[in-house]
Amino acid sequence: MEGGCRVQRYVFGIDLGGTTIKCGLFSETLGLMEKWEIPTRTENGGLEIVSDIARAVLGKMNQRGIEREQVIGLGIGIPGSVLSDGEVLGAVNLHWGHKDVKGELEEKLDFPVYVGNDSNLAALGENWLGSGKNTKNMVMITIGTGVGGGIIANGQLLVGKHGACGQIGHMNAEEEEATACNCGNYGCLEQYASANGLVRMAKRKVVGCRRATILSEKTVTAKTIFEAYKQGDSLAEEILYDFFRCLGKSLAAISCIVDPELFVIGGGVSKAGEALLEGIRRSFVKYAYVECKDTPFVLAQLGNDAGMYGAAKLVSDLGYGR
Amino acid sequence: MEGGCRVQRYVFGIDLGGTTIKCGLFSETLGLMEKWEIPTRTENGGLEIVSDIARAVLGKMNQRGIEREQVIGLGIGIPGSVLSDGEVLGAVNLHWGHKDVKGELEEKLDFPVYVGNDSNLAALGENWLGSGKNTKNMVMITIGTGVGGGIIANGQLLVGKHGACGQIGHMNAEEEEATACNCGNYGCLEQYASANGLVRMAKRKVVGCRRATILSEKTVTAKTIFEAYKQGDSLAEEILYDFFRCLGKSLAAISCIVDPELFVIGGGVSKAGEALLEGIRRSFVKYAYVECKDTPFVLAQLGNDAGMYGAAKLVSDLGYGR
Repeated sequence: MEGGCRVQRYVFGIDLGGTTIKCGLFSETLGLMEKWEIPTRTENGGLEIVSDIARAVLGKMNQRGIEREQVIGLGIGIPGSVLSDGEVLGAVNLHWGHKDVKGELEEKLDFPVYVGNDSNLAALGENWLGSGKNTKNMVMITIGTGVGGGIIANGQLLVGKHGACGQIGHMNAEEEEATACNCGNYGCLEQYASANGLVRMAKRKVVGCRRATILSEKTVTAKTIFEAYKQGDSLAEEILYDFFRCLGKSLAAISCIVDPELFVIGGGVSKAGEALLEGIRRSFVKYAYVECKDTPFVLAQLGNDAGMYGAAKLVSDLGYGR
Repeated sequence: MEGGCRVQRYVFGIDLGGTTIKCGLFSETLGLMEKWEIPTRTENGGLEIVSDIARAVLGKMNQRGIEREQVIGLGIGIPGSVLSDGEVLGAVNLHWGHKDVKGELEEKLDFPVYVGNDSNLAALGENWLGSGKNTKNMVMITIGTGVGGGIIANGQLLVGKHGACGQIGHMNAEEEEATACNCGNYGCLEQYASANGLVRMAKRKVVGCRRATILSEKTVTAKTIFEAYKQGDSLAEEILYDFFRCLGKSLAAISCIVDPELFVIGGGVSKAGEALLEGIRRSFVKYAYVECKDTPFVLAQLGNDAGMYGAAKLVSDLGYGR
């Protein structure tokens, strides 16, 4: 109950991406009051990023007359491995190595900061307000430039010993692969089932292809491949066969571990919609354990805001009642 | 505090196996007071099993003068898929289809019954008293006739939507496999990395082998293969290469999902000891995500009693404070 004379309190949710930083100001009951973006300055080893975030948050507080004591906390999603205490092991796209993001931000802001992996927090957001609403066991897989994900089990976001829970893109999907993944291993799911992986695989097949196809080496992107696929282009079908095979196999393996109520598919490639879901489903059913074959697949609902919502929810999960 | 005039209370822990039923009587504080075994009568579709268990428990209560009101509950591990409400979807080795084990036992015993998957409860037992003591994130893999497992995340045993959490043996490990697994799929981990799977693969290689080897088609078992391996037998090394490759790859995939603090290896094949751990570790490191490569592997400590202990712990986790 919010009485008239009770002080309003606030939560910040931040999604730190490789090009933009999405910021959200939330009420104590986690209603979104305002959202805005600032650019991510990755130059100089990403040295300015933490200061930029602190400035954006303090500026908003100043603009709205919000005192530090009124802020319950700030949640932030980072594209890298984050331990359960908020320690960041590294974030390649930001040019960050090991970094104490929580400590640095708390020093500048003087209120509690909670840090998570961006894909994990997107899963938390979808579990809270999106397609996974009302489920206690859910797996989200984000298919964008890379492949990420998040695991909700028994109603809790899993983080793990090394902050690696939901690193779905680095499950091995192929034994024989000559090219290394960004992570250093060979044959990671991400090498086949991300937008980049799809283009990589497609280029191998487009070059020298003698069949009739609307795809060409110059125009091939995840988007054009799915467009061609929907038009029945046989080369696109062949390219996507491996994409679906690797995804279905990996998600079936996940079912044997955490057996979710549903899979939520998000990220840029999920704009392909029902054609994507149907292809994954067909492959999943082939590999899935008998009891799990009926697990549903749905598209994410919160789009690019999922991580920002999840960051706010992290504050509520970890910071309320302190 | 247990005062002198306070009534002693009890817990039963049962591990229902394909040949024997292990029974344990525990104090309220989960100290083991007595354990005994009865045979599993799988004839007639396993019709007598539930009655046999009830008779064993009621007989023990009668013998010790324990009243029904003194029993907090009975936990039981079943070799099959069990939903979180205790519903058993089926247990092939017991010749059971769908069965309301909880309801049937509660009707006969008149105190609360909690049902879990046997491998899951073995993991719970090892997490409570064995090698996984003091860890909140642990994966146990049981390598016996088949391959099973259990997942402890955030200090809780995961069950999942279809009771399939920890069905590690049915993760796909090989794309190309002509023989079906017991589950109906092709290329399940269990087809390569169980005692049965190992013998199956070994027989393919022993027949017509022209190399010097101490293995022969008639003597080949998981035990003799590991003995030969420890003596440097090159055929045994070749046979175990695939075994380790499949196991390491699958456990590395598990690290990307639940990122445990450690893997506990149990089941009959774990008697191979350090040679087994070392082989798995070498393969795991190749496939594991960079942050997880140092995840330790240890042998289970409770042996055949793990499931019985875990069944008692299930009562404590779910039944105390009711």
